[in-house]
Amino acid sequence: MADQHAQSGEDKRPTEIPAIRWEEPPEGPVLVLLDQTRLPVEEVELVCTDAPALVEAIRTLAVRGAPLLGIAGAYGVALAAARGFDVEDAARAIEGARPTAVNLSVGVRRAEAAHRAALGTTGDPTAAATAALAAARALHQEDAAASARMAAHGLALLDELLPAGGHRILTHCNSGSLVSGGEGTAFAVALAAHRQGRLRRLWVDETRPLLQGARLTAYEAARHGMAYTLLTDNAAGSLFASGEVDAVLVGADRIAADGSVANKVGSYPLAVLARYHHVPFIVVAPVTTVDPGTPDGASIEVEQRPGFEVTEITAPQVQVTGAGGGIPVAPLGTQAYNPAFDVTPPELVTAIVTEEGAVSPVTAEALVELCARSRQVTI
Amino acid sequence: MADQHAQSGEDKRPTEIPAIRWEEPPEGPVLVLLDQTRLPVEEVELVCTDAPALVEAIRTLAVRGAPLLGIAGAYGVALAAARGFDVEDAARAIEGARPTAVNLSVGVRRAEAAHRAALGTTGDPTAAATAALAAARALHQEDAAASARMAAHGLALLDELLPAGGHRILTHCNSGSLVSGGEGTAFAVALAAHRQGRLRRLWVDETRPLLQGARLTAYEAARHGMAYTLLTDNAAGSLFASGEVDAVLVGADRIAADGSVANKVGSYPLAVLARYHHVPFIVVAPVTTVDPGTPDGASIEVEQRPGFEVTEITAPQVQVTGAGGGIPVAPLGTQAYNPAFDVTPPELVTAIVTEEGAVSPVTAEALVELCARSRQVTI
Repeated sequence: MADQHAQSGEDKRPTEIPAIRWEEPPEGPVLVLLDQTRLPVEEVELVCTDAPALVEAIRTLAVRGAPLLGIAGAYGVALAAARGFDVEDAARAIEGARPTAVNLSVGVRRAEAAHRAALGTTGDPTAAATAALAAARALHQEDAAASARMAAHGLALLDELLPAGGHRILTHCNSGSLVSGGEGTAFAVALAAHRQGRLRRLWVDETRPLLQGARLTAYEAARHGMAYTLLTDNAAGSLFASGEVDAVLVGADRIAADGSVANKVGSYPLAVLARYHHVPFIVVAPVTTVDPGTPDGASIEVEQRPGFEVTEITAPQVQVTGAGGGIPVAPLGTQAYNPAFDVTPPELVTAIVTEEGAVSPVTAEALVELCARSRQVTI
Repeated sequence: MADQHAQSGEDKRPTEIPAIRWEEPPEGPVLVLLDQTRLPVEEVELVCTDAPALVEAIRTLAVRGAPLLGIAGAYGVALAAARGFDVEDAARAIEGARPTAVNLSVGVRRAEAAHRAALGTTGDPTAAATAALAAARALHQEDAAASARMAAHGLALLDELLPAGGHRILTHCNSGSLVSGGEGTAFAVALAAHRQGRLRRLWVDETRPLLQGARLTAYEAARHGMAYTLLTDNAAGSLFASGEVDAVLVGADRIAADGSVANKVGSYPLAVLARYHHVPFIVVAPVTTVDPGTPDGASIEVEQRPGFEVTEITAPQVQVTGAGGGIPVAPLGTQAYNPAFDVTPPELVTAIVTEEGAVSPVTAEALVELCARSRQVTI
């Protein structure tokens, strides 16, 4: 069950509202999420008291973004354990809420493993719940730290690729603090450039159908005082053609063993445009996004989302008229093709930047080495 | 001044509502336009009694599409003449309503020249007004005939390029009977393929920011019973990658002497994707779209439209809340880059199909020859 806490937007502006937090009021532990579907108009929090509420929040994209989904998944398992629900059932339900996001599954399994191990050792459900929560908190902290390291590695790479500075960066979807325990992935790199006075312009793709660029990235860019300009996804081609883009920075939802990158639909066309215009296309993601169990791009399961996201327009203030809760903009009965992600092959990716450093050129061997380095650090 | 006539949608369905018609009620001549901003929800007609009403209808895109703009421009001059307004003032105002659309200017000047010639010969304003109207009607009829010939040439080209048949065609924006005195340009080719049982699927790009694909092309495709599927502009890349597109068909707003094609923003990224995937990218447009006075792509003036088209969501049923009459979806004060068109260089265009035949490969010499052929026919 999820309750909504509306924040008074004006008063809260200067404070950062975290995308996710664990609280323990007298009524029992809860997972509090900033409802990203209501941004930038309202800052509303969703309070989840069980896994089904979290599953619903994940499905409706109230909480979204690969690293944050991992953290949410781990806390979801901890929540089920703390509230005395069946942990395995909760884990499977959360994991299945969005099939493409590998981090979600990684987060869920980490908390679940901690829970199982503690239960096996102590036989005490309370101790097991505590262990699951500790695992979720550790993942949250690690993600914040990883974010800072990705930003540093990404900025170093930008400076190497674009020694003239004054970076004009194009980004797609949202990859900032709303997707992360820290400041995000691709957005964190642009923010680091901004803080060092080296960001000339952040070009923000609006990112249809759900407008995460217009609603979320523009919201984060405005909060940080960055020089940003919004555009329809269609207008990116004109920017490339007029030489206004120095680099493309995007996040990733899953990276296959061969370096194929699944990210928000619209990323692949940008990669093709970037290649045609000799502009670097850089993917920024934590090492957990690399999935050695997925051999290549063709093996990535791409989530197909409901057609009404395309055939209807929704916004927080729109009155419900269509089946999907929005306003129909296409003739009734129109069928839509609505993949959530697309897959960019490694040959179009200039570099993958992780908290352990950058991989360029992107090859299966380089990714294996990177993951090994990551495991050494964890040990 | 423009009045609105609401049509009872259900009753009128089987009848084709023309995008434009000239009427002569007792109160004086009027130009009646189907208001394309209200489709597909309502079929509302705008009744223009003077040039400023037409200018407003052109600016708000109530009437749009390169060939139809030419016809509307010619009728607008005839309307000013018939109503006793200053014809030259009206002509300049109409011509300036959308700078990129060369057909608008061509149509305006044709009616204006007929008016001027008749006035010079007869000295009679009534005879001059009749001549302007005759010029507009001739343009209207020629455009309908050109449309049918473009469809035939385009289908022949498709059958040559794709001998296996079962065409899966991707189109962008709207290029059907709503842009034309006939059945349109690119859409007319897909419709001809449909009528011959050779269209397997029409992929319809929604075409942000104004959703002409979702609102207008889907409306026309549904009326004709075509197999069509709507997608966000972002999802086109996934279709190409999975081999689901056999050809791209788009219209054009202006073709420079070197074969550079200005068309709705988002066309150029499709051309780049099509090239990357070895899929033909075909432009369908009447010969009047070729502008020998514009030497190349860089010389094409691209209209920049207001940012609120991107920062706000509008639909016929949306209540006005933002400055642009829509619902804000980006933070207040967000700046937007919103070019109406982009320019595709000739090397990315497989063929240009006109009523005089197809040009492939697209070269300045081939276009000169085509225009000469067209002039011969007119003489």
